[in-house]
Amino acid sequence: MNLPDVRTRSLRRGSNLPHVADFNASVVLGAVRRAPEGIARTEISEQTGLTVQTVSNITRRLLSEGLLIEGGRVTGSPGKPRTLLRINAPGRFAIGMHVDPAVLTYVLLNLDGTIIAKSRVRNPSDISHEELVEVSSSEVESLISSSGIERRRITGLGIASPGPIDTRLGIVVDPPHLKGWKRVHLRQDLQEATGLPVILDKDVTAAAVAERWAGAAAESADFLFLYLGTGLGMGMVINDIVVRGSSGNAGDIGHIITGQGTTVCTCGQRGCHGQAECVGVICSPVTLVSQAIERGIMAPSPSLPAGEALTRFPELCDLASRGSAEAKAILDHAALRLGESLSQVCNLMDPELVVVGGPAWTPAADHYLPRLRQSVQSQSVAGDIHQLRLVGTSIGDDVAAVGAGCLVLDSIYSARPDSLMVS
Amino acid sequence: MNLPDVRTRSLRRGSNLPHVADFNASVVLGAVRRAPEGIARTEISEQTGLTVQTVSNITRRLLSEGLLIEGGRVTGSPGKPRTLLRINAPGRFAIGMHVDPAVLTYVLLNLDGTIIAKSRVRNPSDISHEELVEVSSSEVESLISSSGIERRRITGLGIASPGPIDTRLGIVVDPPHLKGWKRVHLRQDLQEATGLPVILDKDVTAAAVAERWAGAAAESADFLFLYLGTGLGMGMVINDIVVRGSSGNAGDIGHIITGQGTTVCTCGQRGCHGQAECVGVICSPVTLVSQAIERGIMAPSPSLPAGEALTRFPELCDLASRGSAEAKAILDHAALRLGESLSQVCNLMDPELVVVGGPAWTPAADHYLPRLRQSVQSQSVAGDIHQLRLVGTSIGDDVAAVGAGCLVLDSIYSARPDSLMVS
Repeated sequence: MNLPDVRTRSLRRGSNLPHVADFNASVVLGAVRRAPEGIARTEISEQTGLTVQTVSNITRRLLSEGLLIEGGRVTGSPGKPRTLLRINAPGRFAIGMHVDPAVLTYVLLNLDGTIIAKSRVRNPSDISHEELVEVSSSEVESLISSSGIERRRITGLGIASPGPIDTRLGIVVDPPHLKGWKRVHLRQDLQEATGLPVILDKDVTAAAVAERWAGAAAESADFLFLYLGTGLGMGMVINDIVVRGSSGNAGDIGHIITGQGTTVCTCGQRGCHGQAECVGVICSPVTLVSQAIERGIMAPSPSLPAGEALTRFPELCDLASRGSAEAKAILDHAALRLGESLSQVCNLMDPELVVVGGPAWTPAADHYLPRLRQSVQSQSVAGDIHQLRLVGTSIGDDVAAVGAGCLVLDSIYSARPDSLMVS
Repeated sequence: MNLPDVRTRSLRRGSNLPHVADFNASVVLGAVRRAPEGIARTEISEQTGLTVQTVSNITRRLLSEGLLIEGGRVTGSPGKPRTLLRINAPGRFAIGMHVDPAVLTYVLLNLDGTIIAKSRVRNPSDISHEELVEVSSSEVESLISSSGIERRRITGLGIASPGPIDTRLGIVVDPPHLKGWKRVHLRQDLQEATGLPVILDKDVTAAAVAERWAGAAAESADFLFLYLGTGLGMGMVINDIVVRGSSGNAGDIGHIITGQGTTVCTCGQRGCHGQAECVGVICSPVTLVSQAIERGIMAPSPSLPAGEALTRFPELCDLASRGSAEAKAILDHAALRLGESLSQVCNLMDPELVVVGGPAWTPAADHYLPRLRQSVQSQSVAGDIHQLRLVGTSIGDDVAAVGAGCLVLDSIYSARPDSLMVS
């Protein structure tokens, strides 16, 4: 069994009635998912534009498939009491796996994206591909067996990987922090090792999918997800479609240049001398922790691999919270540069919402949030036309692993335009 | 009569059979459009996944509506000779209008996007909104009457405007080079003045739509359009969907910072001292012509408004072509910075193709093309996975005006996912 191809096909194929039926089922399921308090069939009809009869036929099918449950009745307003529908959260499950240079995270999610079980394995940066496959299939098996869930309810395994990747072949190509990984066929190898359908995507894209499935962006059709971890990256959803680019590698923002020059632009943002550098370097935990060590506010370290820097980054944030002027200055400068780069991307993409998350976000959130919000709002070209909201993730540090599981659920159950097209 | 709303709706509405029929007609029309040599019904069936019977029904309808013509037969290969279908180019027309700070351009296009007639009016930067509406409706009327085309074959008027705009209200909000324009209701006023359905979009988005309707990107589902005019901007098509952002203002890249710092990033691109500035300033004709005047290779000018700088920019390019080392240095530096910024956007969006055009492109093309190509290809994060092509527009200086007309054709005749959804 295979999951649907996550690469969106271009709109050059026709559609037909069976595809419309499946699409409409996804649209109805989506309406129920976005109503955790329950929703009546008549409301679904209003929201989706489908007739009440069509909605009833679809919900009958979704109830029989165990995706929905009936529960609660609403009286009041004229007419007979209406039965509410809800997602049957334990009706389906998915497993997510995040390959981070420092740690491997595995989560078991139910249908509404809630974590049922979780495990972590330290990821030595020199782990071989074969070891990774062995460790991962063993972790996946133990998650399933200890949960007691029937295997047939597990819809698949999602992998969130650092880029670059090749989504067509399911290959991790050559990620900067994973030494010796060259064109690793992770999707196929894990499919064979676990017997589950497997989907592979970039970690930042997975995180954005988590936010729209189970997080802060459930109501938004146009949002960006800024991921702060060992490095940084961007997940994008525009017009309710996940933007993956032509090869699945969209979202690389590490080499956006940030800095301050001498010419004052019409945007009024430049004006002082300064130097320009790639934001992925300037704002990385390695750079920030190194600066703190240089300034003598953190203990020296003989070497500082990316994973260790991420582990020590909360200490720097803690120093800032406890009043260290040096620590504050380091974080302020990072927030300024990060905000500047984020504004550039917002002006390119014109989103209505930015969600920020990832393991380097949690400790820095109090410090970064007001500064990033101020940056994107003050520098927004469309600021007179619509508000641009910026919020922190509600999912926590595991957003990429949760996203990996949500990739599976999203690929099967979300309404996607290409699901309407004959293959 | 109104044109379809260009803002893509989110995928939260259901679909039904009449919508599928219209969508499939657009898919078939698109297949014929992309085959200027003609295409047989069996080939359309293969390309679209629709049955030959469905294709025959649809082409019968499109023939009777005057959108297609039959012409030519192919023999050879086994089976009976097949009749080829082509677009009936004079079957429909659209008018495009480009509001540039320096010049107003009006074009009359046929169904395949070819310019049938054109006019230009100098646009004084202090033109009032009322004068613009009067001039424009008069230009539109004279284009129609002198062409002798029946008015019922004119599908509408498209306006390509500098941003920011409000696509929901059809308003030009407050463009930097059009003094005194604040929240101008251009769509509604021109609709009333001309009696035609009117669509308003950003100039850079219109240019991208031109490239996919009638230009270099007809075969591409994932491409970027870099527009070089008085300012610069980006039009984007991803997954065959025009990316407009939540308010229609996507594509603002003028404030991307470019420059060179001291820290060497993993991308290897930085390494020398330098200053950072917004690319829209650094690479604008005003800046480049001013530099040439400062260096004494172009005649001084008492003042240099953006429109005049654009008019004088070809002189600078000509100097470079004739061997001026100073002129070459100015253009080389601009190409370097432009390439750097373009690479950042390519790494964010992961396109397969970049098309460059606009009035500042034509004179600089010989100089810029190899340098921009080298930049985006050498700095592409996904360079190991797929080739990233960069080409100049095939449409010429009027790409935004042509795009304005193509906006109308695209909104009516292109396959769009939201055309599948019940409204």
